[in-house]
Amino acid sequence: MNGPIMNGAESLVETLVAGGVEVCFTNPGTSEMHFVAALDSVPGIRCVLCLFEGGATGAADGYARMAEKPAATLLHLGPGLGNGIANLHNARRARSPIVNIIGDHATYHLQHDAPLTSDIEGLARVVSAWVRTTPDAASVGSDAAEAIAAAAAPPGGIATLILPADAAWTAGGKVAPARPIAAARTVAPSAIEAAAQILRAGKEAMLMLGGTALRQDGLDWAGAIAARTGARLMAQGSNARVERGAGRVPVERVPYPVDQAFAVLKGVRHLVLVGASAPVAFFAYPGKPGRLIPEDCEVHVLATPEDDLTVTLAALAEAVGAKKSQAPRQAPMRPDLPTGAITLDSIAATLGALLPENAVVCDESVTTGRGFFPLTRGAAPHDWLQITGGAIGLGIPLATGAAVAVPHRKVINLEADGSGMYTLQALWTQAREQLDVLTVIWANRSYAILRGELANVGARNPGRKALDMLSLDNPALDWVSLAKGLGVEGKRVTTIDAFADAFRAGLKVRGPFLIEVVI
Amino acid sequence: MNGPIMNGAESLVETLVAGGVEVCFTNPGTSEMHFVAALDSVPGIRCVLCLFEGGATGAADGYARMAEKPAATLLHLGPGLGNGIANLHNARRARSPIVNIIGDHATYHLQHDAPLTSDIEGLARVVSAWVRTTPDAASVGSDAAEAIAAAAAPPGGIATLILPADAAWTAGGKVAPARPIAAARTVAPSAIEAAAQILRAGKEAMLMLGGTALRQDGLDWAGAIAARTGARLMAQGSNARVERGAGRVPVERVPYPVDQAFAVLKGVRHLVLVGASAPVAFFAYPGKPGRLIPEDCEVHVLATPEDDLTVTLAALAEAVGAKKSQAPRQAPMRPDLPTGAITLDSIAATLGALLPENAVVCDESVTTGRGFFPLTRGAAPHDWLQITGGAIGLGIPLATGAAVAVPHRKVINLEADGSGMYTLQALWTQAREQLDVLTVIWANRSYAILRGELANVGARNPGRKALDMLSLDNPALDWVSLAKGLGVEGKRVTTIDAFADAFRAGLKVRGPFLIEVVI
Repeated sequence: MNGPIMNGAESLVETLVAGGVEVCFTNPGTSEMHFVAALDSVPGIRCVLCLFEGGATGAADGYARMAEKPAATLLHLGPGLGNGIANLHNARRARSPIVNIIGDHATYHLQHDAPLTSDIEGLARVVSAWVRTTPDAASVGSDAAEAIAAAAAPPGGIATLILPADAAWTAGGKVAPARPIAAARTVAPSAIEAAAQILRAGKEAMLMLGGTALRQDGLDWAGAIAARTGARLMAQGSNARVERGAGRVPVERVPYPVDQAFAVLKGVRHLVLVGASAPVAFFAYPGKPGRLIPEDCEVHVLATPEDDLTVTLAALAEAVGAKKSQAPRQAPMRPDLPTGAITLDSIAATLGALLPENAVVCDESVTTGRGFFPLTRGAAPHDWLQITGGAIGLGIPLATGAAVAVPHRKVINLEADGSGMYTLQALWTQAREQLDVLTVIWANRSYAILRGELANVGARNPGRKALDMLSLDNPALDWVSLAKGLGVEGKRVTTIDAFADAFRAGLKVRGPFLIEVVI
Repeated sequence: MNGPIMNGAESLVETLVAGGVEVCFTNPGTSEMHFVAALDSVPGIRCVLCLFEGGATGAADGYARMAEKPAATLLHLGPGLGNGIANLHNARRARSPIVNIIGDHATYHLQHDAPLTSDIEGLARVVSAWVRTTPDAASVGSDAAEAIAAAAAPPGGIATLILPADAAWTAGGKVAPARPIAAARTVAPSAIEAAAQILRAGKEAMLMLGGTALRQDGLDWAGAIAARTGARLMAQGSNARVERGAGRVPVERVPYPVDQAFAVLKGVRHLVLVGASAPVAFFAYPGKPGRLIPEDCEVHVLATPEDDLTVTLAALAEAVGAKKSQAPRQAPMRPDLPTGAITLDSIAATLGALLPENAVVCDESVTTGRGFFPLTRGAAPHDWLQITGGAIGLGIPLATGAAVAVPHRKVINLEADGSGMYTLQALWTQAREQLDVLTVIWANRSYAILRGELANVGARNPGRKALDMLSLDNPALDWVSLAKGLGVEGKRVTTIDAFADAFRAGLKVRGPFLIEVVI
C-alpha cells in the first residue's frame, strides 16, 4: 500500500479482502503483474499458484463448495480464460460462487489487435452469471465489490471481472466496502401447503433434493418428511456436495445409466423438487426419451436453488407434522476388507471399510465409481463432492481447492485416469502448498465410459480404429512417474490387499500422496 | 459404410475424405461416438487421439502449417471446445486452416438443459472465421464441404462445424463433393507501382513480411527487391513458419522487448507491408507507445494475408527491376560447439552447431530463445515455427501435428518449462504415434518472462509473495519423470557438453525423445 494513493490493482486486492475473499487461485501473465505486485503490499489474501488455468478454476470450485464463500481466480486474457472454461462450466452447474478475474490489455492498446487480443466478454458470458469490464482505476473497487456480491448471491454463481492493465496500474483506486449479499428467497406458505397436500395424499410421491438440501440439516428435515408421509427421497444425479455417512439421513442418487434411472423412478406420480431439476438423461440416446420420469408423473417445483432450501424443508416438515427425530438415520456399516483381485466391487468395499471420519471425497471416478455409494453409506460421516457439469478434468483441481478451504480435513480424490489427465498439473499445486490430499487413480487405461456409450448410441461392433480412440494403453500412462514429476510421492498397486495397505498408508501422510490402482 | 444408406456421421467422414482432409486430431466423448464408429466404416482418414483438447487443436495448427491444408479436430461439446480455445486462438493468429468439429447434444435434447449443455456457438465465434450448427443428417455433408472450403480460403482460418448427435446418427446423410477453394486475391498493378516508387525513392524504407511471404519463394523475391532498392527487410515478430538457413534469404524478426524493437525500427520512414501488420507492442507498458514504428513513419499496406504474397513480391521485383539472382543468400555458418556452463548463449550456439538439415523447429522457448535466431541462421536449411497468438502451451502439440504432417522430417520442439506444462499430455500422443519429435525443455523453473514484465509495467521491488507467483521451483518440475509417465524416454542435462551429447543422441532416435536442460 502506497498510503492514501493506490492504484487500481491495490484497490482490487483491498476490496477483495474487505469482501471476505481470502484466497486467489492464479495463473498470471504480464497483464496481471500489478495485481501480483499488489499482493505484496496488501495483506490478507493467500495466493495459490496453478500451472494451468483449469487447475485454478477447478480449485476455486472446490474451495467454494467447502468454504461456502467465493475465492478469486486470476487468469490471463482470453486464452487463459479459455483454459479455465471447462471447470467454470462445472462450477456454474455446482452453483459455486467464484470471483473470476481476467486481466486484459490496457484499454488503449486494444485498437492495435496485439497477438493476445480476443473477445474476453464473449467467452466469459458462456459461463458467468455476471460479467463486467471495469473501465478505469477509480471503478475497480466498486466493480469488485459488486462482483463479490453477484457471486455470493444465492444460489451462487460466477462473476467475471475483466481488469484492463491500465485500470490496474493507474493511480486513483478506491477501496469499496463489502456490499450486502442478497438473501435466499422464501417459498410462499401456499406453495408449502400445496406440496404438503401432495405428499400426504398418497405413496407415489418423491421428494427430489439438490443443492444445499443435501447438507445435514436439509436431509434431516427431508428424511423426517419422507418417514412421515411415505414419500420417497432421492438426490439428483450430480451434486456439488452431499453430507452423508453413519448417523446421517441416507439418500440415493438418480443413476447415470438411463435404463437404471428409469427403473428407479418407475411408479413415481408426483415429483416434488427442492433445489433439484426434474431428472433428464445426461445424453440423448436413439429411441429413448430425454426425461427420466414416467410420462404420467406430475412435476411440482417447490423450491429452486435461489430459495432457502433448509427453511423450505423445515416448513414442509411442519406442514406434514414431521419431526426431525423421525428421520431415518444410517446405521454404522463397514464392509469387510476384501482380498484378492481388484474389481469394482472390491474397490468399493475397501473404500467403505477405510473411509476416515470427516473426509472430503472428491469423486471423478466415472465408470469405476458407480458402485461406491451403497458401500460407503455406513462409513463415518463425510462429504461427497461430484462433478456437476460433466466436463471431465475436475477432480484433481477440486480436491486442491477443497484442501485449501478445510486444511484440517483429509481430502480423498477418487479419479478416473482419462479424466485426471486433463488437469494433472494441479498435483504440483498440492505439493507446493503441502495440501492434505490422497489421490487414487483408477487406471483402467481407457475411456471406459465411451465403450458403453458407443453401444448405447447404437454403434454396434466397433472396429479397431474406433476402439483405438477409447484406449489409453498404448503406451500405458504411468501415474507414479507423473506424480513424481510434479513433486508428489506415489505408489502403484495391482492387488486389492495392496490397495488397502496403500490407502491406509496414504491416510497417514500429511500432504499429498497418490495411489495408482491398476484395474 | 452401410451401402447407399448412411447416417450423418458417415457422410461427414466421407465428405472430409472427398475434401482432402486426411487427419483428425480428436478427443471424443459420448456425443461423438457415431463419428468414431464411422471412422471404421469409411477409409481414408487417420485419427490421432489426444488426451486433452488443447493438444488436438495445437496439433491441428502444426499440421496445417506444414501440410498447407486443414486437418479436422473432433471435440466434445462446449467444455471440450473450451479446452481447445487457447490453441485455436494461436491457430487463428497463424491463419492455419482447421476444420473444427464439435459434437453437441441431440437437437431435441437441448431443451432439457442436461449437465453438459452450453452455448457452443458463443465460444466458437471468438476463434472462428466460420461457425455453423448443422441441423440434420441430410445437411451434414454439404455443411462439412462448406466448412472445408471456408477453412482453406486464403489466408486460412478456423471453420467450426457443430454436429448434433442426432444429425450424426440419423440415416439420410449425403456425401458432398469438395467445394472449390477461393483463390488468393491479386494486388492491383497500381498498388505495385506505388510501392515500387516508394522503395525506389530512398533508403529509409522497410519491407515487412508476414505469412506466406516468409517461405523460400517470397523471401527470394523480397531479398532481391531489398538488394535492388536498398530497402530493409524484416519479418513481423511472431510468424507461423519461416523458411531459413544456409542458402536462403536471411530475415530478422521484430524483437519482443519494446525498447529493442524501437531501436531496430528507428529511422524507418516508409513501411511497406506484405502480409504483415504494422508492428505493435505485445503488451502495453506504462508511458510507452503501443506502436513500435517511429511517429513520422508512413505505413503502406501493399498486400494483406488474403492476397497472393509470392505473386505480389514477384510483381514488385519486376517493377523495381530486381532479379531473384540478386537476392542475398545466407552463407553456411555453424558456431563452434561451446563447452562449460549452460547459458543462453551456449545453448544458442549448440543449436546453431547441431541443427540438422530439413528440421522443423517448433519454438516456444519464450525468454530462453530470444538469441536463437542469429546463431542458427547459417545452419542447414530448416523451417522455424513460432507461437503466433501468445497463448502459451502450444509447442508440444504444434510439434505433434507437424510430425504427423511431415513424417520424414525431424521435428525439434524448443520448449519453455512453464509453457510446456499447459499441454504436456501431447507427449503421450507422440509416443502412441511414434512421432519423430525431439523435445528440449528449457528448465529455468520460473515464469522468467514475468520477472522482466513485473519490472516493465512499473512494479518495482517485488516481494516474496509476488515472486512466488513467478517461480516453479518449489517443487522443481521433473520433466524426465513426466515424459516417462507419458511413454517418452528422456534425459536431464546440467552442462552444455552433456546437452550437445544428448541432442546428438536425440537426433538419432526415430520417435519421440525429451531432453530437460537445467538452466
